[in-house]
Amino acid sequence: MSINYKELAQKYQTPYYVYDFDYITNQYNELKESFKARKSLIAYALKANSNLSVIKHLAQLGAGADCVSIGEVKRALKVGIPPYKIIFSGVGKIDGEIQEALEFDILMINVESAAELNRVEKIAKELGKVARISIRVNPNIDPKTHPYISTGLHENKFGVDIDTAKRMYIQCNNSEFLEPVGIHCHIGSQLTQLQPIKESVQIIADLVRNLKAIKIELSFMDVGGGLGIIYDDEKLIDTYEYAQAVLESMFGLDITVVCEPGRFIVGNAGTFVTKVLYEKVNGEKRFVIVDGAMNDLIRPSLYNAYHKVEVLNNNNELSKCNLVGPICESGDFFAKDITLPKTEHNDLIAIHSAGAYGFVMSSNYNTRGRVAEIAVENGKDRLIRKRESFEDIIALEEEFIK
Amino acid sequence: MSINYKELAQKYQTPYYVYDFDYITNQYNELKESFKARKSLIAYALKANSNLSVIKHLAQLGAGADCVSIGEVKRALKVGIPPYKIIFSGVGKIDGEIQEALEFDILMINVESAAELNRVEKIAKELGKVARISIRVNPNIDPKTHPYISTGLHENKFGVDIDTAKRMYIQCNNSEFLEPVGIHCHIGSQLTQLQPIKESVQIIADLVRNLKAIKIELSFMDVGGGLGIIYDDEKLIDTYEYAQAVLESMFGLDITVVCEPGRFIVGNAGTFVTKVLYEKVNGEKRFVIVDGAMNDLIRPSLYNAYHKVEVLNNNNELSKCNLVGPICESGDFFAKDITLPKTEHNDLIAIHSAGAYGFVMSSNYNTRGRVAEIAVENGKDRLIRKRESFEDIIALEEEFIK
Ligand SMILES: Cc1ncc(COP(=O)(O)O)c(C=O)c1O
Ligand SMILES: Cc1ncc(COP(=O)(O)O)c(C=O)c1O
Repeated sequence: MSINYKELAQKYQTPYYVYDFDYITNQYNELKESFKARKSLIAYALKANSNLSVIKHLAQLGAGADCVSIGEVKRALKVGIPPYKIIFSGVGKIDGEIQEALEFDILMINVESAAELNRVEKIAKELGKVARISIRVNPNIDPKTHPYISTGLHENKFGVDIDTAKRMYIQCNNSEFLEPVGIHCHIGSQLTQLQPIKESVQIIADLVRNLKAIKIELSFMDVGGGLGIIYDDEKLIDTYEYAQAVLESMFGLDITVVCEPGRFIVGNAGTFVTKVLYEKVNGEKRFVIVDGAMNDLIRPSLYNAYHKVEVLNNNNELSKCNLVGPICESGDFFAKDITLPKTEHNDLIAIHSAGAYGFVMSSNYNTRGRVAEIAVENGKDRLIRKRESFEDIIALEEEFIK
Repeated sequence: MSINYKELAQKYQTPYYVYDFDYITNQYNELKESFKARKSLIAYALKANSNLSVIKHLAQLGAGADCVSIGEVKRALKVGIPPYKIIFSGVGKIDGEIQEALEFDILMINVESAAELNRVEKIAKELGKVARISIRVNPNIDPKTHPYISTGLHENKFGVDIDTAKRMYIQCNNSEFLEPVGIHCHIGSQLTQLQPIKESVQIIADLVRNLKAIKIELSFMDVGGGLGIIYDDEKLIDTYEYAQAVLESMFGLDITVVCEPGRFIVGNAGTFVTKVLYEKVNGEKRFVIVDGAMNDLIRPSLYNAYHKVEVLNNNNELSKCNLVGPICESGDFFAKDITLPKTEHNDLIAIHSAGAYGFVMSSNYNTRGRVAEIAVENGKDRLIRKRESFEDIIALEEEFIK
């Protein structure tokens, strides 16, 4: 679908994020379809983009929710995702979060350490509840992605090793207040190779079989998220092959497959649109300065991430430049040494593949209001988050001036 | 002054930022005092920490404000910093921002490109106003700091070279709507060497003299911010020597010195306090997991910045670990391979030197509410920003769910 960025800029001002909801539908359906040979739950990873309208859209398609804070759980509930489709993951759950998750009676709490399991047991006991538990296994496999988003090695903080997991399942099984229901692994994000995924799901499937042998029967095998998308010229994992690999690992097991994609669902549905303020040349260097900045989209600064940049004008005079924002840091850039046409004040620039880990990571650095978010569905646009005003920014501190 | 972190944790929960206002007073006074041989304006760089109570405190001490967005200008005005002490800097000013700055009649607009000067002239003309202009000169000097916070080289986006500056001053002088009043340079942040500063202020002072020779008389020489602080074991620039170097460069000039420190004023006034959730061991690695995360303090992830960590317990069993938050990214850490005592659930950890570029860069990533900010002054604590609730986080998007 083609989105009229100029029209949206006139209507909503710049910068803004726009999301193509029809694209989201297609991504979701493609993945769901690939798993059709089994009972499956696509638990969308809210962390990638948790705008309430985005998740409402996914809820209507039947998606569940992979949440990493009680805030994300509340978002999921708010838009009508039923508790039995909600998973609460994360390496560090606060007591109050565990308590609320138990009270909401969500599908399962995904536990990431022996110490945490003890906390969950204690809190469940206090509440007189039985906590449905899934355990995140760290399969110690190199996912071959950026170190910041690689999570499946022992040197990472995530999950527990196989032996610890086994002991934890036995503890669950012996406890009145714990019920072992699931197993989980997630080795990293923006994965483009199937082999590491195959190996990890094989490892957890074997554990499921071992547990079965000792009469611990799990109902859910959560194979994580992480499916990569095209930012530049990546060769992707074929969704069907991915599903086949996962399903094969589960051969002979009566278990529901869960997967928790974030980026795959929303990454390429989103575009960040910004406006040219000025061009300048310092020494030999050309700079195109836009009204968007690192506070709006931090991936280039934080991960050195590549985003395709499209200048929406008809100029053919090309030259190299840095595309930068107005923030007073050299780290405030969208692209370096990129070839772009000459621009004029107010030309629009589309920064693609910004639907995942874009808005959700944005801040008010330099007292810049967070931008508007727009949905386009069926050719119609609508606002899904208001641009932040100065009053919004200071709302929680104003009363304390003395 | 010693702050009782435990008491504050009981009163305000964790995580939180706490700022020592008496320390801020001392830093401000020390710098102001160093410049006493001249008329000076210490224009605090709001970007470092723009909490309204922090800047109100500085306003009461007599500080001006260095602002990089109209939002920061509004913050300064809100707490009573008079317009004639407010500077508006930044490489990319939006038309609306320029217009508002002119309407507020602030001290000067610090212009960073020829293109921007034209915009300011056009807008001033439309409003029938005269814009007081300062020009940011890029002295092309290596400040010897982290590349992300180094700003004084031509390869950076900041300022203009000497020749361009000269042409721009002449344009100002010839325009009915522009008045050249200031000159500015800022070569980077967390500077620990005096020599590069000396060289740059010398360069702009020479330009002031050249301009004087052609009858363009400036009133303000803004030597930027950037004074480093002790995070670890840095040897600092002596404040008095710094001021001397600046004042010497101005010999024979009748001009007010402006400087715009951020980090120096607030960096070591602030501490980020977080609570231990769990310890875990993965393979050989020990992890201490706390309730604070990269969304609260991103400097370690973004700049690989060092912050001194203090565990507030009496345990003497020391070993290496990674100090990490609950966010689902390996980039979510406060310190790696650091030696810390064994910790228990709920032990407090103080992360020091977090007063600058801490809270202001925080986000709602993972739907985590931004933390509370607390001031301590004269032995008394008070809340200066409320902890963000779930309702606060979704306030701007809730109405659009359909
Ligand atoms: C446990 C877990 N599941 C799912 C995801 C979503 O990953 P992606 O957006 O790459 O699909 C993440 C990402 O960090 C994660 O840590
Ligand atoms: C123009 C300008 N002035 C002042 C500052 C404040 O710097 P510091 O906090 O290092 O004093 C900065 C920081 O980025 C800046 O860019």
